Amino acid sequence: MSTEQRDTVFIGKKPIMAYVTSTLIQLANLPSVNIKARGMSIGRAVDVAQIISRKTENSGYMIGNISIGSESLESQDGKTRNVSTIEIEVKRNTQ
Amino acid sequence: MSTEQRDTVFIGKKPIMAYVTSTLIQLANLPSVNIKARGMSIGRAVDVAQIISRKTENSGYMIGNISIGSESLESQDGKTRNVSTIEIEVKRNTQ
Repeated sequence: MSTEQRDTVFIGKKPIMAYVTSTLIQLANLPSVNIKARGMSIGRAVDVAQIISRKTENSGYMIGNISIGSESLESQDGKTRNVSTIEIEVKRNTQ
Repeated sequence: MSTEQRDTVFIGKKPIMAYVTSTLIQLANLPSVNIKARGMSIGRAVDVAQIISRKTENSGYMIGNISIGSESLESQDGKTRNVSTIEIEVKRNTQ
């Protein structure tokens, strides 16, 4: 795993706890991290954000801004189709 | 289809355009409608909201507040497990 600091975690096909760990490592150094996903992975992005906010509750991290969008992808037959995206901010709880 | 006015559309296993239609029908009478989903249907809720906001663009409806959460469900073996939820507001574009 790279130790590079990035403020975005992209959700793919790894086990969900891998993304929880990645996000928590980034949050150790940064005030906020964005969790991004598209298509079928959108539900998993919500799971990652919920696991982090639930396990750390009042003392730790909270959900920030959430935005949704769509991207045009070109499929292998040359047609473009739209895929939905989500971006969930997780940030230090400042209470 | 019932003609009852409800401000929430729950996303399940029907074809996605069925939920687009339901949401548009509710929006004809109400200023805003919430699209709700949990678990595997979360990605489809984002699709429904995106289709509506994209097709109606500047003149029609826009995405409002988005919130995520989790619910405890009791599974058939008596264990409780958490499932993520999403709620997306779609409202009249007031520009």
